[in-house]
Amino acid sequence: MTVTNSTPADKRGVLAIGNAIVDVLAQVDDGFLQQHGMNKAHMTLIDAERAEAIYAAMPAAKVRMSGGSAANTAAGIAMLGGAVRFVGRVRNDELGDAFSADIRKIGVGFDTSPAQDGPATARCLILVTPDAQRTMNTYLGACAQMTPEDIDPAAIAAAQVTYLEGYLWDQPHAKEAMRKAMRLTHEAGGKVAMTLSDAFCVERHRAEFQHLVEHNIDILFANESEIVSLYQTSDFDGALQHVRDHVDVAALTRSEKGSVILAGQNVHIIDAVPGVSVVDTTGAGDLYAAGFLHGYVEGFDLHACGRLGSLCAAEVISHVGARPQIDLKPFVAQALKG
Amino acid sequence: MTVTNSTPADKRGVLAIGNAIVDVLAQVDDGFLQQHGMNKAHMTLIDAERAEAIYAAMPAAKVRMSGGSAANTAAGIAMLGGAVRFVGRVRNDELGDAFSADIRKIGVGFDTSPAQDGPATARCLILVTPDAQRTMNTYLGACAQMTPEDIDPAAIAAAQVTYLEGYLWDQPHAKEAMRKAMRLTHEAGGKVAMTLSDAFCVERHRAEFQHLVEHNIDILFANESEIVSLYQTSDFDGALQHVRDHVDVAALTRSEKGSVILAGQNVHIIDAVPGVSVVDTTGAGDLYAAGFLHGYVEGFDLHACGRLGSLCAAEVISHVGARPQIDLKPFVAQALKG
Repeated sequence: MTVTNSTPADKRGVLAIGNAIVDVLAQVDDGFLQQHGMNKAHMTLIDAERAEAIYAAMPAAKVRMSGGSAANTAAGIAMLGGAVRFVGRVRNDELGDAFSADIRKIGVGFDTSPAQDGPATARCLILVTPDAQRTMNTYLGACAQMTPEDIDPAAIAAAQVTYLEGYLWDQPHAKEAMRKAMRLTHEAGGKVAMTLSDAFCVERHRAEFQHLVEHNIDILFANESEIVSLYQTSDFDGALQHVRDHVDVAALTRSEKGSVILAGQNVHIIDAVPGVSVVDTTGAGDLYAAGFLHGYVEGFDLHACGRLGSLCAAEVISHVGARPQIDLKPFVAQALKG
Repeated sequence: MTVTNSTPADKRGVLAIGNAIVDVLAQVDDGFLQQHGMNKAHMTLIDAERAEAIYAAMPAAKVRMSGGSAANTAAGIAMLGGAVRFVGRVRNDELGDAFSADIRKIGVGFDTSPAQDGPATARCLILVTPDAQRTMNTYLGACAQMTPEDIDPAAIAAAQVTYLEGYLWDQPHAKEAMRKAMRLTHEAGGKVAMTLSDAFCVERHRAEFQHLVEHNIDILFANESEIVSLYQTSDFDGALQHVRDHVDVAALTRSEKGSVILAGQNVHIIDAVPGVSVVDTTGAGDLYAAGFLHGYVEGFDLHACGRLGSLCAAEVISHVGARPQIDLKPFVAQALKG
């Protein structure tokens, strides 16, 4: 087994930084998306007013649960038995309290102080269509309050990997916080991991993301549409030829085509877990990152990291919601076997 | 564009060496395969007696056409406009005359002298099931008469690539001929390409094939089950990690998952052509090799080689039979674009 990473004695686990969001899910048909002018399978930022309007139009059968991309990843790592902390801003309101309680209960360290005033805790209104795709409308609310002061140098130094979500680039203060986190991580000898989050997010920040990939990110997570958008290539293979020169490790997910992991001269092609009945793809990328990063900090080879990512992703797409519903720990042994 | 190959002034095109076989196809259901104890989707060698019995049991609606794995590849290269010769042994009988006339008409140079006595021209009885899989029963007949004398040093020296089919290892004399061809190719500064042909063929010759891959083959073609069988790994990714150290170029086909091309540090992941209605997979690997090798000798980059292979494979699986039915030349421009 090629060990990808040896654990420094003074470092342990992952620090994840992201938007602290409560998900509100409902099943709708495609007509609902058209009627409300939504971009299917993508995340759109909305303001408080539109959040109210969409919420009111959603079917009564709504499911509420803690979410947020990097927070989902943190939850997955904790459920795999890994050490993980989360940094993200909620408001001191009912949703904020629920978010904090949920994430701590799973075993994620979380002590970002809630905002005492300003916009409410963020929520993501997720419409799940019969094809299992999820269309997300995010009101960022209190997330916009994240500032560089929320980045604790000691917490950064204590982790092997700092994991960031691309969505943070939608907010100027959070972006500053991210730049601080990346700088501190490298100064402390850690690795910076980041997900590109969403193809439209890549479009909004392409030049900055390209710069980050070339200069700041060690471990990149992206799906096919995100990496193709980043490099504006005609296909996946074209993007592959760029990214392999830019980061130490790229873990590129391709839905039912599995994932491709590139690390210098090494390449691994990991098949998707076969026979999964896809109910809701929400959280697939987040849980892939959870499995991969947990394997990475445990020193698994990249094949096993990818396998663990695939297994965790397969769990989360087999039911509604972005947080796993079964014990993930048996996946560790399974990933190491195959 | 990374050019993979620059054409030496004194060399041109491909020399393909393989079994000269006439295909006899019929549509059957799965019950027919079970009734006759056939391994679905694989090639089985049969004797003259069993060939007679299966032929008699096959439905009356049979299609007869020239085939043979390397011969199909040669036909594809000729149809793409490439220079190509074929070496293979037929008998001077009706089927042998038909094979020779067919392959020459397509534009393949073919001057192996037909056997004047001994077994009849080889035939492959191909049963196509409703799932588009083909199950092959091959009576090798006159093919067994190929000897090292059929390998012409001048023809080898004139080609950029000598292409061999793994099936040839099923015959002791042909195997000697192949060893001579590989030696002469390298002495003349050419490249040796070979397909592993079939997972059961790999099983029959695993140790020898492993040695060939490590020491004699420059460009390897294999599908997923063949490469996994060669290295006896649990999955495709495991096999990938072995083969990349063993050959200059590995072009690994994966049916609807497309193909993966490895060349030292380079990797290309080529998607299958989308939206193809699969009628009969006979010849898919042969035509992939045709497209790839034509691109290779023309100096295309590996992405374009793989794309051309995929386009040619897509054509041949969209109808019954292992030889293309439309003009392949427009695929060249298409492969270079995408």
